[in-house]
Amino acid sequence: MMPDLAPPQESDGEARLAALAVLAQHARDLTDAVALTDVPERELRAVTAELAALTDRLGAARRTAPAQPDIGPDGRFRHLGNAVVGDTNPHALPLVIERRPEGGVRAGITFRPVHEGPPGLVHGGVSAMILDHLLGEAVAASGRAAMTGTLSLRYRKPIPYGTPVVGTAAVGRTEGRKTWVDGMIALPDGTPLVEATGLFITPSQWAEVVLGG
Amino acid sequence: MMPDLAPPQESDGEARLAALAVLAQHARDLTDAVALTDVPERELRAVTAELAALTDRLGAARRTAPAQPDIGPDGRFRHLGNAVVGDTNPHALPLVIERRPEGGVRAGITFRPVHEGPPGLVHGGVSAMILDHLLGEAVAASGRAAMTGTLSLRYRKPIPYGTPVVGTAAVGRTEGRKTWVDGMIALPDGTPLVEATGLFITPSQWAEVVLGG
Repeated sequence: MMPDLAPPQESDGEARLAALAVLAQHARDLTDAVALTDVPERELRAVTAELAALTDRLGAARRTAPAQPDIGPDGRFRHLGNAVVGDTNPHALPLVIERRPEGGVRAGITFRPVHEGPPGLVHGGVSAMILDHLLGEAVAASGRAAMTGTLSLRYRKPIPYGTPVVGTAAVGRTEGRKTWVDGMIALPDGTPLVEATGLFITPSQWAEVVLGG
Repeated sequence: MMPDLAPPQESDGEARLAALAVLAQHARDLTDAVALTDVPERELRAVTAELAALTDRLGAARRTAPAQPDIGPDGRFRHLGNAVVGDTNPHALPLVIERRPEGGVRAGITFRPVHEGPPGLVHGGVSAMILDHLLGEAVAASGRAAMTGTLSLRYRKPIPYGTPVVGTAAVGRTEGRKTWVDGMIALPDGTPLVEATGLFITPSQWAEVVLGG
């Protein structure tokens, strides 16, 4: 959501970025395997040593920040290093977000066991993280660049992990640099699980670029 | 925060759990290395293949859920598999939370590059995730078991990653199964960065156990 884009680095060819995204997905799989593994202690120690060696190999050349926002080959804005949606950031779910023809955004979500808070259920903080991002994407889809000002969440029903749910968000109204936006995580039949309302603010230094004012 | 604890599994000896926590920390280091690596595409592919082999080894014996809440050897409640604080869950920051003598909780936090939202800054959703958990811990520290009902966040200043910040939370008041709690993420000098207020609800099936009512 930053309008000023860094020039691409030479090493950021699309083939390399695709390979990095595959590696990031494997790192997510490893994360899941660690949280769920039941192998004996000796094997845990053996895997730990080999994992450390792989981390060292990746660290042979290291940047100071994840992949920065840029324009992808399809001409669309993307942020591959983003903590919630970035394909090359293993912390990201990741979330595939569609812009809806009628406005707003939609994402199918399947939370994983590593997102557990109460036993068998998704951590309320993880739901909050996803909703903050979805609301921000709805703001971006409306053509505005903004950061979260306030965010209010209402937890109506617990979310089980491993079950597909749906996240949606859409802008309500705008006033100068302020954008109000609503969203929710719901069951596929529309039953609301967590609802969110946010007020997003376009920073004054972006407003000139984005709002032309 | 679930009062009904599962009986420990035989494989959950403290030595094995400690080894699993070390592995989880190495998985976090790998996550960071993936997000930041600048090694060439060929090396990315080579590391991916070896990583997949490690994931397979861990998956040789696999549970359906991360480590469940239990009572640790120090006699205190813990949730090693938790998505935000769990030592054996690589998704967790993790967060080391102290209970303050005067009430409430405190945690030193250093966000990492994988938590990036806007360039150089922590994703607002990640701050929300941490605050939801801190508020819940403050409720638990007050002796009540509860889940988030509503959560409101106010983003006052962006949080840079890599810089130590401080999270705090404390219960305001209670009424039956409702608990109101406030918290914030602040600079070490106390300057507020993100503020939160939550209403936590004790599920009726827990209330009999925990509130004795």
